[in-house]
Amino acid sequence: MKFGTAVGIVISCVGIAMGATMEGTNVAVVLNVPAILIVLVGTLGASIAACGLEIHLKLPQLFKKAIMPDDLDLVGRVNEIVGYAEKARRDGLLALDEAVKEIKDPFTQKGVQLVVDGTDPDLVGAVLEAENDAMRQRHALGRAPFLQAGGYAPTMGIVGTVFGLVNVMNNLNQPSTLGPLIAAAFLATLMGVGSANIVFLPMANRLKELSQAEMHFREMTLEGILGIQAGDNPRVIAEKLMAYVPPAQRPSEEEQQAAKAAAQKQAA
Amino acid sequence: MKFGTAVGIVISCVGIAMGATMEGTNVAVVLNVPAILIVLVGTLGASIAACGLEIHLKLPQLFKKAIMPDDLDLVGRVNEIVGYAEKARRDGLLALDEAVKEIKDPFTQKGVQLVVDGTDPDLVGAVLEAENDAMRQRHALGRAPFLQAGGYAPTMGIVGTVFGLVNVMNNLNQPSTLGPLIAAAFLATLMGVGSANIVFLPMANRLKELSQAEMHFREMTLEGILGIQAGDNPRVIAEKLMAYVPPAQRPSEEEQQAAKAAAQKQAA
Amino acid sequence: MKFGTAVGIVISCVGIAMGATMEGTNVAVVLNVPAILIVLVGTLGASIAACGLEIHLKLPQLFKKAIMPDDLDLVGRVNEIVGYAEKARRDGLLALDEAVKEIKDPFTQKGVQLVVDGTDPDLVGAVLEAENDAMRQRHALGRAPFLQAGGYAPTMGIVGTVFGLVNVMNNLNQPSTLGPLIAAAFLATLMGVGSANIVFLPMANRLKELSQAEMHFREMTLEGILGIQAGDNPRVIAEKLMAYVPPAQRPSEEEQQAAKAAAQKQAA
Amino acid sequence: MKFGTAVGIVISCVGIAMGATMEGTNVAVVLNVPAILIVLVGTLGASIAACGLEIHLKLPQLFKKAIMPDDLDLVGRVNEIVGYAEKARRDGLLALDEAVKEIKDPFTQKGVQLVVDGTDPDLVGAVLEAENDAMRQRHALGRAPFLQAGGYAPTMGIVGTVFGLVNVMNNLNQPSTLGPLIAAAFLATLMGVGSANIVFLPMANRLKELSQAEMHFREMTLEGILGIQAGDNPRVIAEKLMAYVPPAQRPSEEEQQAAKAAAQKQAA
Amino acid sequence: MKFGTAVGIVISCVGIAMGATMEGTNVAVVLNVPAILIVLVGTLGASIAACGLEIHLKLPQLFKKAIMPDDLDLVGRVNEIVGYAEKARRDGLLALDEAVKEIKDPFTQKGVQLVVDGTDPDLVGAVLEAENDAMRQRHALGRAPFLQAGGYAPTMGIVGTVFGLVNVMNNLNQPSTLGPLIAAAFLATLMGVGSANIVFLPMANRLKELSQAEMHFREMTLEGILGIQAGDNPRVIAEKLMAYVPPAQRPSEEEQQAAKAAAQKQAA
Repeated sequence: MKFGTAVGIVISCVGIAMGATMEGTNVAVVLNVPAILIVLVGTLGASIAACGLEIHLKLPQLFKKAIMPDDLDLVGRVNEIVGYAEKARRDGLLALDEAVKEIKDPFTQKGVQLVVDGTDPDLVGAVLEAENDAMRQRHALGRAPFLQAGGYAPTMGIVGTVFGLVNVMNNLNQPSTLGPLIAAAFLATLMGVGSANIVFLPMANRLKELSQAEMHFREMTLEGILGIQAGDNPRVIAEKLMAYVPPAQRPSEEEQQAAKAAAQKQAA
Repeated sequence: MKFGTAVGIVISCVGIAMGATMEGTNVAVVLNVPAILIVLVGTLGASIAACGLEIHLKLPQLFKKAIMPDDLDLVGRVNEIVGYAEKARRDGLLALDEAVKEIKDPFTQKGVQLVVDGTDPDLVGAVLEAENDAMRQRHALGRAPFLQAGGYAPTMGIVGTVFGLVNVMNNLNQPSTLGPLIAAAFLATLMGVGSANIVFLPMANRLKELSQAEMHFREMTLEGILGIQAGDNPRVIAEKLMAYVPPAQRPSEEEQQAAKAAAQKQAA
Repeated sequence: MKFGTAVGIVISCVGIAMGATMEGTNVAVVLNVPAILIVLVGTLGASIAACGLEIHLKLPQLFKKAIMPDDLDLVGRVNEIVGYAEKARRDGLLALDEAVKEIKDPFTQKGVQLVVDGTDPDLVGAVLEAENDAMRQRHALGRAPFLQAGGYAPTMGIVGTVFGLVNVMNNLNQPSTLGPLIAAAFLATLMGVGSANIVFLPMANRLKELSQAEMHFREMTLEGILGIQAGDNPRVIAEKLMAYVPPAQRPSEEEQQAAKAAAQKQAA
Repeated sequence: MKFGTAVGIVISCVGIAMGATMEGTNVAVVLNVPAILIVLVGTLGASIAACGLEIHLKLPQLFKKAIMPDDLDLVGRVNEIVGYAEKARRDGLLALDEAVKEIKDPFTQKGVQLVVDGTDPDLVGAVLEAENDAMRQRHALGRAPFLQAGGYAPTMGIVGTVFGLVNVMNNLNQPSTLGPLIAAAFLATLMGVGSANIVFLPMANRLKELSQAEMHFREMTLEGILGIQAGDNPRVIAEKLMAYVPPAQRPSEEEQQAAKAAAQKQAA
Repeated sequence: MKFGTAVGIVISCVGIAMGATMEGTNVAVVLNVPAILIVLVGTLGASIAACGLEIHLKLPQLFKKAIMPDDLDLVGRVNEIVGYAEKARRDGLLALDEAVKEIKDPFTQKGVQLVVDGTDPDLVGAVLEAENDAMRQRHALGRAPFLQAGGYAPTMGIVGTVFGLVNVMNNLNQPSTLGPLIAAAFLATLMGVGSANIVFLPMANRLKELSQAEMHFREMTLEGILGIQAGDNPRVIAEKLMAYVPPAQRPSEEEQQAAKAAAQKQAA
């Protein structure tokens, strides 16, 4: 399921190519170098002007993140946190000191470390929320180039087409060349509208949804860490965190028991 | 009244088909395979790229939900909750333990169960609000494909039409075929604009309104459950919850008495 | 001043009709049955799909409300509430019991009744605010069909025009009919853009402004009722509520004295 | 600097007129009565339908306010308030009673009067904030006609142009008249797009910025009045209020001393 | 990396110019005086009407700020503040009095000065937040002309093109001049769409991102200053502030030690 974005772009391109071919158009015409220069380089430049150079050096990473997002295992995280809560209740908060080094997720690790260090609860909340705010801002900066490009590409397409039409108008006395010239002018519009609606805008939306899912994941984690620090009953923490999990993914009563047992063993 | 969305789509299609027929157009032309491939497959792909594959596997469910939404019986819920409140006041909170299993709505059931279990009031509120937040997020993800498709479809229509016009321009030397070719090119615009404005955008709005209505329903329920836990007077709870019901649906004084009596019997 | 919306629609139609006639167009051409079917029935259907059937059965009421809105007499309401406050201060809250039945505005009546019943102040606030929230939601649902129609109508106009142009393109070999066919195709655009911008969008905005004015009116009333319950000095209440009244409508010192005297007599 | 809006409109019109003249167009063609009727009367009607008649009777005032806005002397206000604070600290709050009548700004006057009257601090804040909320709402209603007109005018332009083109299409058999007829049809678009982008939308934005500046001015004043009532050290009040002033306008240390001395004298 | 905006604008222009040249258009045609007058002077006038004259006198500064933004050294600021915190903890708050004069950033200086003066902590927070609010408002006013111009320029382009087409239509009887006249008319659209999408909108977005980065920087600073005043452990302050720094920029454990040592020396 993780490859949704790549699959979607392929489906979209194949559908359009098949339709256009059936209409009798040679799809290869879109590989028009002037149109590509005007639309894609023009859009890239405008996007760099709008968002700065640095974020554009991370484009490969951002593409990869949109196409192969990390799995967010909500139930696994709930069980992990409930395991720590049980260990802390049984053996005291300091008993988590060893477990901390094993935690793979840096956010969870930082949170549990702060708790083990006996940091003031308000400060734990403040530090972790500052982390979340900063992540939200980084994500917003990361999807900005796609959002901006989605806005600029169609207008760069218009720029390309109008340039083409200016050329056409200055050659009205050679009627035989008009058709192909107008056709070529239209290709810029095609490239601009197509790239925006098949690549840039869908990727911007995908990155936004992935960011929201990660924030949701982290809020659940934060709630759990504060619960551990407050010494809440692990059953209560599980109840609270399970509300963050979509009902369809929630384990049945028995599954939950088994998972907890396994987590306890792991945390022990 | 529940079939509003299906009825609306049919009315819209019939109106347009009748108008177009009167103008002299053969409506069957819209069943143009290239236009359908470009617009509908192109839009589907872009929507998958934007929202991921998983949500698209639930499209049949989402269509069904928009077309045949659940009835939300506000007055019935008020009476149900007031019934529990009366039982709790008469026989103590634990007396609700039996009733809990009979509750059909999972949200109400979870809430009353938490109250019966003697959970801390703040925690009851926090768990139920986390449930509501998670539902709001799920609903937002559920309507996203319709909203995205409503944005992509018209531009896919433009892509299809421009492809068609490119084809036209390359055939300017065969004037007799121009008319039908241009006509075919326009069909993609028709398909794109039509599908967005008759299906995608109305369904996105419908799902948003249904989501808001369900949130309103749940907020009322949450308020009632917290009232039961706080041991509020059932009359006070009824007063508070009735404010959530539109004046036109509020029962008259007598109806209210009768309903309460019935609810008490049921809850007893 | 109340008939603003009807007056505005008439001015707009007359201006356009006069201008078009001067240009030489026969304005009666807009009464084109295919265009009306495509645009108005198509828009109605899409709006039903988007907002459900029920709200559309209330369209006559909503039209009436936009065209002949209720008068909101801010100064009158201030004087009324200050009158109750004076009576309550003089004779105790229970003295308002009689006055309650005479109150015409249901919201004020409910509020004063709750105060007379000795309801907890927090609860009075919560119930009245739930009433206001529910009203705000009802108003939002009430203007949704106009807002939706304002978005759909122009695109239905494009659908109609494109259908017409498809027809034109298939009749290119009969040049003499082209002009009238293209003209007819344009009428759908005219109908769509015109209905959206002369009727649907202005009515949606009008209903929004009326809703905001009513919320403002109710917030002032709520503030006054809470002041009565808190036993505030009537002069203080008047000072507080008068801040909600636009300076130009505020009575001069003397008018205020006279009004208070009259209100006291009425409330006595 | 105050005449920015008038200057801007003139610059815009002159630039366009010069450019159009150089292209060879006779600029006087825009004085086309049908286009003016359709666009300006049509827009006025739609705006009245959207916002009511009353606000349109205040259009001359609103135009005047946008073109010749009041000067907001931030530093002057800071010095004025610090002067009152010093007087109050020296001679007691009651010593301000005389000064109140001399205060020119009604908002400051009302605030200081409430303080002198010994009103409860929370109430002073509540009354002045209700004044501010009401002003914000009035300003929003005041710029609504410009914002609405900015949206309607271009579409009224399209209505006018389409009406013109319908006329053209019905006269295709008289080719010699086509050019001027199409040219006349375009004038409505020109009028609609031009009036929206040179007058309506800039004025709406200007009124919004002026409203925000006035809110900022009043928030600073409110902060100062509450400081006077709390008996804060005048130096502390000055520090607090100076944060509202843009650094470039802040007086140097010496200027501040001189200004304070002058203000003390005036307030004494 | 700082020259992103200038680099982006150059890339965009070069890409478009190369594409257009390959299509066969002479790029120099865009230097069309009527188009420039209509679009750029028309847009400037509308922007002045919308935002006032004053802000337009600062355009050179704003351009410079977008093209060569200040470096925001997050880690350096953290180390600086931690250094003050250590000094204050070791030698008391008054020991910072000397250091204050050396602070380069006026915001940090004002904050530390207030702390050294023994100002009430709530007041320190209030004054610094008022500074931030005022800066946010100034930044919003500063990017408004670019945002407004980005909206007006394309429509000024349409105005120019329609003026040109009106001219064309009145010269239909001279077919040989039509092509060049239409081409010239299109240049206004090109100028309008191009200037908006290559310069105005990207600069508006760039200024918005720079403003957000500066707000983030200041919020971190404010948090640190309040921590110094509260006498927090410097290690705790470092922990808190480091959450504002993107993980990739955070120094490793050892680097942090070294930096702290250096900062201590400097602050000592």
